[in-house]
Amino acid sequence: MKRILLIIAYDGTEYCGWQIQPNGVTIEAVLNRELTRLLGEEIKVIGASRTDAGVHAMGNVCVFDTDTRIPPEKISYALNQSLPEDIVVQQSREVAPDFHPRKCESRKTYEYRILNRTMRDPNCRRNTYFYHWELDVAAMQEAGTFLIGEHDYQSFCSPATEAETTVRTIHALAVEKEGDLITIRITGNGFLYNMVRIITGTLLEVGSGKRKPDEIAEILKKKDRAAAGPTAPACGLTLMGIAFL
Amino acid sequence: MKRILLIIAYDGTEYCGWQIQPNGVTIEAVLNRELTRLLGEEIKVIGASRTDAGVHAMGNVCVFDTDTRIPPEKISYALNQSLPEDIVVQQSREVAPDFHPRKCESRKTYEYRILNRTMRDPNCRRNTYFYHWELDVAAMQEAGTFLIGEHDYQSFCSPATEAETTVRTIHALAVEKEGDLITIRITGNGFLYNMVRIITGTLLEVGSGKRKPDEIAEILKKKDRAAAGPTAPACGLTLMGIAFL
Repeated sequence: MKRILLIIAYDGTEYCGWQIQPNGVTIEAVLNRELTRLLGEEIKVIGASRTDAGVHAMGNVCVFDTDTRIPPEKISYALNQSLPEDIVVQQSREVAPDFHPRKCESRKTYEYRILNRTMRDPNCRRNTYFYHWELDVAAMQEAGTFLIGEHDYQSFCSPATEAETTVRTIHALAVEKEGDLITIRITGNGFLYNMVRIITGTLLEVGSGKRKPDEIAEILKKKDRAAAGPTAPACGLTLMGIAFL
Repeated sequence: MKRILLIIAYDGTEYCGWQIQPNGVTIEAVLNRELTRLLGEEIKVIGASRTDAGVHAMGNVCVFDTDTRIPPEKISYALNQSLPEDIVVQQSREVAPDFHPRKCESRKTYEYRILNRTMRDPNCRRNTYFYHWELDVAAMQEAGTFLIGEHDYQSFCSPATEAETTVRTIHALAVEKEGDLITIRITGNGFLYNMVRIITGTLLEVGSGKRKPDEIAEILKKKDRAAAGPTAPACGLTLMGIAFL
């Protein structure tokens, strides 16, 4: 019995998120189905990050146990033969039998991509959020600095959370503009339910002048979801990768 | 009666190209249908560039005549309300009544995007061509220089062409690499049938070591489609824009 780790990229547009659901196709369900078919054993993957419906990934991670004789590094190639074109395994390798991707310390990096121009661009509609009004990137950058560090992010968390604590650490938060594309890149030791999307929705309010950058500090203090901005749409969000420490 | 110019962006993945066809949905057919519905007159657009099936655009151009009272600049916004999400008008404006986008001198710019890495990326599968083997970008850049200038590009033209002459001018050809993405950017006064895709297919042969850069000069001399490389897939190609002189 070996434990195999997969690094998975997907275009989440057509999926009801990562986690198996009674109705609707999910990434986890497709991976279980195709791994079970490929390996001839019933496979149930353990995912590192349960991305929401419509959210994308360049490097989500999952593990599973198998008795297969296929060399660990070859599983990715074999599996990609039968996966739909919007899910692509980037790498497969053996890990320690007790490695659990949600029970060890890690750094997750998300990117939220905002297309800030007059007209929509159909060629990046699937993984950017279109925002018509001009955004003040410098104000968004300043606002972002208040979020870095260890904080109680309850204000930036959906009340639907099941997390035991809402304290997390954001190690880096950068807002960058290249042409019409504004990217918010956030690295942290874990993210609460909808946290990156609520941070983005709040930074969009700062960028459009509805809030001042230093209001972020007050929002954090309030520990109240109602104090923060709206949840930005899923389509702009991509889980870029996870580093295990 | 006014002549209106539209700048149009589209994700060509689901279309049988620009030009109206008896079978299959085309960009031109969708524009005619939605303009006719919006303006209450039968509209037939005249396109600047008849992109192939699966080819994308950031700035293709067409014109049409109308008696509408909708201000020219507002037509884009009204039309975008009813267009599918993979076609977006970027701009509408009035032009001279005799302006014909295929009968005046212009500079067209195309980009061919190649994703050069080990595994596919599902998040850019619609507008990049995935190429697994490592490419020598410097060799491709050198090869590209032989194509710049006024030449007879018959070797780089599908025999299905109806063009009177196969002489064209390429004003600029740049091969650039950023991360895993190689972009071939070409500007010229006009392009023959499949020309950018055949140039790309030939540069890919240079990049993978099958040909030397200076073979391009011999291929041009031969004036024979069989001398050049294969036609690269449509998905990687985008018409970036057209400048009218």
